Amino acid sequence: MMTSTELAGRIDHTLLSAEASAAQIDQLVEEAIKFEFASVCVHGAYVDRVVEKLRAADAAPVACCVVGFPLGANKSTVKAIEAAAAVKSGALEIDMVAFLPALLEGDLAAARADAIEVVKAARAANPRTVVKLIVESALLVQGMDRDGAESRIALACRIARESGCDFIKTSTGFHPAGGADVDSVRWMKQHAGGIRVKASGGIRTYADAVTMLDAGADRLGCSAGVKIIGGSGQTGQGY
Amino acid sequence: MMTSTELAGRIDHTLLSAEASAAQIDQLVEEAIKFEFASVCVHGAYVDRVVEKLRAADAAPVACCVVGFPLGANKSTVKAIEAAAAVKSGALEIDMVAFLPALLEGDLAAARADAIEVVKAARAANPRTVVKLIVESALLVQGMDRDGAESRIALACRIARESGCDFIKTSTGFHPAGGADVDSVRWMKQHAGGIRVKASGGIRTYADAVTMLDAGADRLGCSAGVKIIGGSGQTGQGY
Repeated sequence: MMTSTELAGRIDHTLLSAEASAAQIDQLVEEAIKFEFASVCVHGAYVDRVVEKLRAADAAPVACCVVGFPLGANKSTVKAIEAAAAVKSGALEIDMVAFLPALLEGDLAAARADAIEVVKAARAANPRTVVKLIVESALLVQGMDRDGAESRIALACRIARESGCDFIKTSTGFHPAGGADVDSVRWMKQHAGGIRVKASGGIRTYADAVTMLDAGADRLGCSAGVKIIGGSGQTGQGY
Repeated sequence: MMTSTELAGRIDHTLLSAEASAAQIDQLVEEAIKFEFASVCVHGAYVDRVVEKLRAADAAPVACCVVGFPLGANKSTVKAIEAAAAVKSGALEIDMVAFLPALLEGDLAAARADAIEVVKAARAANPRTVVKLIVESALLVQGMDRDGAESRIALACRIARESGCDFIKTSTGFHPAGGADVDSVRWMKQHAGGIRVKASGGIRTYADAVTMLDAGADRLGCSAGVKIIGGSGQTGQGY
């Protein structure tokens, strides 16, 4: 059983559309402060703005910045520089997209090297930085039988763990293959080996949120956080 | 009237899916060499590979790399570093995504400052670098009347020109608002003021290619280049 405040504390309050305006980002920050979401998750262009507003309010939520988003196909050094720049601006959490072709081909070394470079750069800028590795789980499991799908997720978990990430994260929310699914989140929880699981992509209702938490998610990424918290009844009761 | 070879010389042969494998990129390069496309357009992670293969073949096509792709919402300094890294790897063309909220709000100064930083970094690495500014035209014109839509495209052209870009480019091909449309390409041609126009996004057939060239496009971005050239009959006749 989880109160609505506890539920809010599991949510990264997120706005990542290409056309998001400064006014929309300001509203996102205000909502995050009001409902005490875990973080405000935005693009690099807005991270200074978010950090400044959170600090001015002495607010609990932290700034979270995406890196190599949403395709993950940048040079690793560029992703690393992007992460370091966001952390220097005050972001305490980095959600980076893995190099997906390496995950699909089972190239552990290449996928791990890419993630390690980003983790090192982020932690050099601030050792406390929380790093999440987005693995686009719906793409990984697409067209696979259950054993194959679980193997892909297990490998992704190993890469996240061995590269020093704090979380494995399902989805960007931008890939046509889709967002978080229950099986992938369950497999992540089984294979995470001590790191945490973030479910994201397509979590639009209170029921969606409960489903993902029940499947083992520690954190949720959603743009509908206010609606989701509303769905918990705002009573301190609920999930 | 344009021969199939001339048509090929107008096409950036493009593969930008998140999951594109090294083998698919190699095939892209081989096709670009065979059909003499203008460039091979890829993500940063593959630019070294593409440059090496083109050089080994002493081939005419150049390497083109996307920057801030596909959302454009990175810090300007990160986009600039990404562009410089690609140029240092041998890319001769950079397709950067503009900061779209500034374009939508008509904030000429902000959009121009973002583009200028990238252009300067790319040209510092190689003064001959061709830079294209992707403005997501379908998003700019969405929900506008014709005058409003044309004004938005005219402003985007001004930003591309005043920031020193060589091309204004319609689309990433990833935005839900859509790809290149005839009106936007026509308006770009009218307002480009000497810089060139690249149409991209949704150009899948020979007929699509002809439509965009007729509307005023100087260059086309497509992943279906081989099929399009096939559609011209490979006879040296055609469009």
